[in-house]
Amino acid sequence: MEALLRRRRGLVPALSAAAGRLRRARRLGHGAAGRLLVSRLFQPLSLQEGGEAGWEARPGGEAACRSQKLMVQGGLICPAGPGCYHYLPSAVRAMEKLVGLIDREMRAVGGQKLSMPSLSPAELWRASGRWDQMGRELFRLADRHGKDYCLGPTHEEAVTDLVATQTNLSYRQLPLRLYQVTRKFRDEPKPRFGLLRSREFYMKDMYTFDASEEAARRTYSLVCDAYRRVFEALGLRFVQVQADTGSIGGTVSHEFQLPADIGEDRLVLCPTGHFAANVEMISAEQTTCPTCGEPLTPTRGIEVGHTFYLGTKYSSVFNATFYSAENKLQLAEMGCYGLGVTRILAAAVEVLSTEDSIRWPSLIAPYQVCFIPPKKGSKEEKGAVLMEHLYDDLAEAVPQLAGDSVLDDRTQLTIGKRLKDANKLGYPYVIIAGKRVCDDPPVFEVWSQNTGEVMFLTREGVIELLSKVRVP
Amino acid sequence: MEALLRRRRGLVPALSAAAGRLRRARRLGHGAAGRLLVSRLFQPLSLQEGGEAGWEARPGGEAACRSQKLMVQGGLICPAGPGCYHYLPSAVRAMEKLVGLIDREMRAVGGQKLSMPSLSPAELWRASGRWDQMGRELFRLADRHGKDYCLGPTHEEAVTDLVATQTNLSYRQLPLRLYQVTRKFRDEPKPRFGLLRSREFYMKDMYTFDASEEAARRTYSLVCDAYRRVFEALGLRFVQVQADTGSIGGTVSHEFQLPADIGEDRLVLCPTGHFAANVEMISAEQTTCPTCGEPLTPTRGIEVGHTFYLGTKYSSVFNATFYSAENKLQLAEMGCYGLGVTRILAAAVEVLSTEDSIRWPSLIAPYQVCFIPPKKGSKEEKGAVLMEHLYDDLAEAVPQLAGDSVLDDRTQLTIGKRLKDANKLGYPYVIIAGKRVCDDPPVFEVWSQNTGEVMFLTREGVIELLSKVRVP
Repeated sequence: MEALLRRRRGLVPALSAAAGRLRRARRLGHGAAGRLLVSRLFQPLSLQEGGEAGWEARPGGEAACRSQKLMVQGGLICPAGPGCYHYLPSAVRAMEKLVGLIDREMRAVGGQKLSMPSLSPAELWRASGRWDQMGRELFRLADRHGKDYCLGPTHEEAVTDLVATQTNLSYRQLPLRLYQVTRKFRDEPKPRFGLLRSREFYMKDMYTFDASEEAARRTYSLVCDAYRRVFEALGLRFVQVQADTGSIGGTVSHEFQLPADIGEDRLVLCPTGHFAANVEMISAEQTTCPTCGEPLTPTRGIEVGHTFYLGTKYSSVFNATFYSAENKLQLAEMGCYGLGVTRILAAAVEVLSTEDSIRWPSLIAPYQVCFIPPKKGSKEEKGAVLMEHLYDDLAEAVPQLAGDSVLDDRTQLTIGKRLKDANKLGYPYVIIAGKRVCDDPPVFEVWSQNTGEVMFLTREGVIELLSKVRVP
Repeated sequence: MEALLRRRRGLVPALSAAAGRLRRARRLGHGAAGRLLVSRLFQPLSLQEGGEAGWEARPGGEAACRSQKLMVQGGLICPAGPGCYHYLPSAVRAMEKLVGLIDREMRAVGGQKLSMPSLSPAELWRASGRWDQMGRELFRLADRHGKDYCLGPTHEEAVTDLVATQTNLSYRQLPLRLYQVTRKFRDEPKPRFGLLRSREFYMKDMYTFDASEEAARRTYSLVCDAYRRVFEALGLRFVQVQADTGSIGGTVSHEFQLPADIGEDRLVLCPTGHFAANVEMISAEQTTCPTCGEPLTPTRGIEVGHTFYLGTKYSSVFNATFYSAENKLQLAEMGCYGLGVTRILAAAVEVLSTEDSIRWPSLIAPYQVCFIPPKKGSKEEKGAVLMEHLYDDLAEAVPQLAGDSVLDDRTQLTIGKRLKDANKLGYPYVIIAGKRVCDDPPVFEVWSQNTGEVMFLTREGVIELLSKVRVP
């Protein structure tokens, strides 16, 4: 029985892998392969010859900071006008993974996802007073009937008006935690640094409605916890600092900042962790921690999240009320919470990358694995087939990686040249069919970007290693 | 051995279900439950008392057609201004499922997903001549520097300009099949019918670049096949008709239409399937099929997809070229392809629903299963706990349904009232703890919307039935 099982175990993977290849090929309609080939990806063909794609020459393509340079050169974004970018396929893949991660954390705090229009009627903004207050940061337009709109940079007015339409809202339905992941628009006076400060960008914005101030503060702290979990999952060093409430308003506010020299925000941190604030929040004289007296350390940060306790600032304007347990109409206590989705992508690249090589939080890398087969005409050429089988076997054995592997089929180039490109693009794992692919059994060279390790592994070893890769 | 196995089999589900409940509860941070409760969903509290939510009273909330009425009443959409809607949580769930299905079919034909800005510079549209040609359908605006933009209703100009920046494009990289799923904007003179004709909507648009006319026609037919697979997967009856190319241009065009009385397009169909066209394409005298001579049947349709063979109309304007095998620069042959994502949602509801009950293509129903526990204080009340266990066990045994089940905890209402609501919202499966929940073993009443069947099943029977549900 034991022997039979072992024999079957030996057989099954090979059989099922072959069947899987066929099934996949048929489904993809790609002939015999169905593999993702680097030569077919819509990205600059050759990263060595920088500038050849011509994108750096476009307005917004000049390299004002590391992430902008690397993302334009690596074919992640392409300038489409001042402060506007095309998100190219690899960037969309990273973004969708990030959104998946954010969705999970928002659901975990009871978030319900909706989607509000970008066209935001002027009357909502006039009611809150922000039609004038926001000044030239609002993109404004009129429709064919002369009715005024702005393109929503944020949606406090819209969501409060929406909740106010539910005139029979009961305290039992609260808290309401509504969020969306949509494009936002802000007519920045000086868009710059690529996706770090652009005019059209993706944001996750949540709006919460509670029955009491106490409940609203509980919600506030729950959402802040969720934000921390997002940055922890990404492996990004961040600080949560006290912040100004700005044009959004409210009484309490925090920013989530990634410390970085390029950051536009100036922060002070207590070295023992008792206090952290945006300098907007402290007087120039304050140089020590208000709690422990330690000297405050100045640093710069990239703002990637912002939370506001709003109270009834908007609910009172739009009359967003609910029936209390005593059946009295009361104003909902609100909070709002933003995560800069595209800004997180760029900020992560900014803080993790080296001067000329992109590094991703591994959870959201556009592709997890790059396979580099031998150069055409080399001694190891027959290793190409083994590598293709390994690619297919991995997709079969580790289904969550099935769409997450690319095969660098530019076999007219040396392995070294392609490895250099792979290094620049920051695949967490690169698998090379080097000299030892001719060993029996064949041995593959596996580069792990995050640990800096190089391993020599058999087919089974590669699959075992990669079966541990987490995907969102 | 056999006996041992059987005993273990009996034990394991109970144990693993309990452990799973704990794990899930911890993960969700929702106390002991972590279940999706109907009373907590952001939707009208009571569907019986129509109009109470106040949404129908807003502009755009009046019921001009079935899908609009049902989607507003059911809390799927809420008017946000003329031709603009908030997509509420259930609609977003359906939309994300639909997008998942479309993504899969686009990837299957080699589609690479990108995302282009909504702010589309006027100079692109002036270059193609459409800045004037599109007239008042374009939403136009100027930024703080006085630079003109429109909000993209479609992206032929933008994508062709983008591909043209890759000045060293090789024939080896072709075909390029780029697509996005983004909001589009069109200043309709008469927005109406809810999501069927709105001013801000989601569209999937694909743009293809091929090395020759022959290759481009192959791409055209591949993408049409993919569109057919989308509608087939949704179980929607559709026709593919010859269509006018309109302002997009090109030489060949087809529309994908769902036959419906409310449809704004007039079609003629050959009863034997030899010919189908939008009436725009035929002369008034033509009343018989050009192929077989059968009399043409007039019908109306809702346009849900549109394909265009463009040739070099746009590539010649923006100089989107590639190097041929002979190393000569040639213009790319283009096609463009649209699927109305939010329109498909509404059109599906329009054609599948009854007068007062929503019916979804089961693949994209917002939730697959609704659990209705007994009324509080009824004889069957103790069945509530059994139902909660069934909910949890299903999530454990059929993980793809874990986030797809809701528990109607409004136990102050009779089962009958809640079943009526569930029927109106169109859950594919409704599971009721009726009288027979007190049997030993307990028996649940399972309503299958799509087959109209009512089944009486044990816990194991329910799980077996639902393990066959397909999710995208």
